Amino acid sequence: MHRTARAPASSANLGPGFDTLAVAVALYVEVELRSRPGGLRVSAEGQGSRLPRGASHLAAKVATDVLGHDRVELHVHSQIPLARGLGSSAALAVATAAAAGAGDPFGYGAGVDGHPENAAASALGGLVTAAMVADRPVARSLALDPEICFAVVVPDRELATSAARQVLPEMVPRADAVFNLGRLGLLVSGLADHHQLLATAGDDRLHQGHRSVLFPEAPALLAGLREAGALTSCWSGAGPSLLGICTVSTVATVAGAARAIMQGLGVAGDVLELGADLAGVQVTELD
Amino acid sequence: MHRTARAPASSANLGPGFDTLAVAVALYVEVELRSRPGGLRVSAEGQGSRLPRGASHLAAKVATDVLGHDRVELHVHSQIPLARGLGSSAALAVATAAAAGAGDPFGYGAGVDGHPENAAASALGGLVTAAMVADRPVARSLALDPEICFAVVVPDRELATSAARQVLPEMVPRADAVFNLGRLGLLVSGLADHHQLLATAGDDRLHQGHRSVLFPEAPALLAGLREAGALTSCWSGAGPSLLGICTVSTVATVAGAARAIMQGLGVAGDVLELGADLAGVQVTELD
Repeated sequence: MHRTARAPASSANLGPGFDTLAVAVALYVEVELRSRPGGLRVSAEGQGSRLPRGASHLAAKVATDVLGHDRVELHVHSQIPLARGLGSSAALAVATAAAAGAGDPFGYGAGVDGHPENAAASALGGLVTAAMVADRPVARSLALDPEICFAVVVPDRELATSAARQVLPEMVPRADAVFNLGRLGLLVSGLADHHQLLATAGDDRLHQGHRSVLFPEAPALLAGLREAGALTSCWSGAGPSLLGICTVSTVATVAGAARAIMQGLGVAGDVLELGADLAGVQVTELD
Repeated sequence: MHRTARAPASSANLGPGFDTLAVAVALYVEVELRSRPGGLRVSAEGQGSRLPRGASHLAAKVATDVLGHDRVELHVHSQIPLARGLGSSAALAVATAAAAGAGDPFGYGAGVDGHPENAAASALGGLVTAAMVADRPVARSLALDPEICFAVVVPDRELATSAARQVLPEMVPRADAVFNLGRLGLLVSGLADHHQLLATAGDDRLHQGHRSVLFPEAPALLAGLREAGALTSCWSGAGPSLLGICTVSTVATVAGAARAIMQGLGVAGDVLELGADLAGVQVTELD
C-alpha cells in the first residue's frame, strides 16, 4: 500500500452561510501513506510541521481509524496555515482518509470538528453546502462561476474555532435569521453568475459582528476589500482570515489594496490570490 | 392604451427559505387595462371576484399609482385563490403594474406587503430569491430543474398572512437559524437537480411549526405528501396551502394520495397539479 492523496483548503461560512456554505481554494495538503510493519511513523513539512508527530497527530489518528491498525508511515506536506479559518484540519483529515483508502473521506473529515462544510469542500471541491441530517453529515454541490477567485487576507495570528464560537449568543432575533437566509439566497445566485453578485450578499448578522471583538480590524478590512473592487467580502470560516470574492481580472488589484490596508492598520500577515479548487480530494496509487 | 398582462401565482418560503425563496406556479391572474376618460371602472371574474370593485380594489390602487390618474377601466380574471398562501395579491399587483406600463412591476408587487419574494416569482417566473436591501426589494433567479412540478394542497379555509406572522416568536435559537440555513443550501441544490433533492431539504424550524397551531392537520399532510412520493414538502407561503415538490412522473400519484389524506383528516379543499411558470409576467399590447 503506497498512495498519496491531496485535498484543498476551504473557506467556510462565506458571510451569510454560517455553518452551511464552503468553497474549496487552490491551497493544498498532501498526505503520502505507505505500509510500515514496524509501526507508526509520521513526518511533516510545510505548514503545521512543528506539531507533535506521534499518535496524537491528526493524520495518525485518521489513518489508524480507517485502517484499523497503526502499521503505517505518513508524510504530510501542507500549504494550509493552521487555525486561520482555512479548514486545515478538515483538509488533512480528508486527505489522510483518502490516502488510507476510506470509502467516504468526507465523513472522516466531517468527524473532526462536527461541522461538515469544510470537509465537504475539501472532499468535493468547488462550492458546497453541507448540514448534519440525523447526526450524519450531508453535502451537495452548488454552481460556481469559473471566473470567481479570491483575495484571502491571512493575518499572522491564530484564532481557535472554539474561541470564535464562544462569543456567539444562543438566541438571535428572528429578523437576523431571516436577514441571513435572504443574503444566502442572493450569495448562491451570485456565486453561480458573478454578474449577479451583490456586495450585500456577503453580509451576515449571525457571527461576523460578534467575532469582531476577537479581530477588531476585521470590519475595516472587509469594507476595504469591497472598496478595492471585490464583488463582496466576508470572514473565512471562524477567522481570522478574510475573503475578498473577486474575478480573475480584479483579484490582483484587490490583493494589492488589501496589503496596503493591512499595513495601514498594523495587521501583520499575507494576502493570497487563490483560484477555486474544483477537483476536491485526489488520490494517486504509487505502487 | 389597451393592454393585458398575465402574472403567475407563487409559493413562497418553501420550508427553510422563510421570507426568502419563492417559485412561480402555472396558475394565473390576467389584468386587462384600457383608458376610460369617464373614470375608474373595475370588473372581475374568477377568484376574488366578490371583492368590492371600487377604488379600494388592489388593481385600482396599483393602476392609479402607476398612471398618476384613475381614468382607466380594469378587468381582472384570476385563477389564484385568495388568502391561501399562493401570492394572489403580489401576482395581481405585478400584473396590474405591468398592464399599466410600469417599468418595474416587481417593485410594485413587492410594495403590497413588504415581502418581495412572491412578487419576484410573479415578475420573473421560475425559482427566485429575494430580500430587502436598504429598504429596496432585490431579487435574483436560481436554477430550477425542468422536471420539478408541484402537488398543491389548497384547503377550503383562508389564513391571513398577518395572523400567520403573529404566532412567530421574535427571538429564535441560533441552532434553529443554522438549521434553516443548512436546509436552504440543500434545497437550492436539490431544486437545481431533483436527483440531489433530499426530503429534509424542505424542513424548517422558523415558521412552519409555530403556524401549525393555525392548521393542526398540516404536519400529517406534509408527512403524507412525502410518503406518497413527493421529493419533499413544505408550507406554501403563510399557508394554509401546502406544497408537495414532485417530478412530472410522480405528481399525479402524490396528488391522489393527498386527496385521500385530506378526506381522512376531514380537511375540505382541493389538490392542484401545477408545473412551474418560467416566463413571469407577460404583457400583450392590444391596440
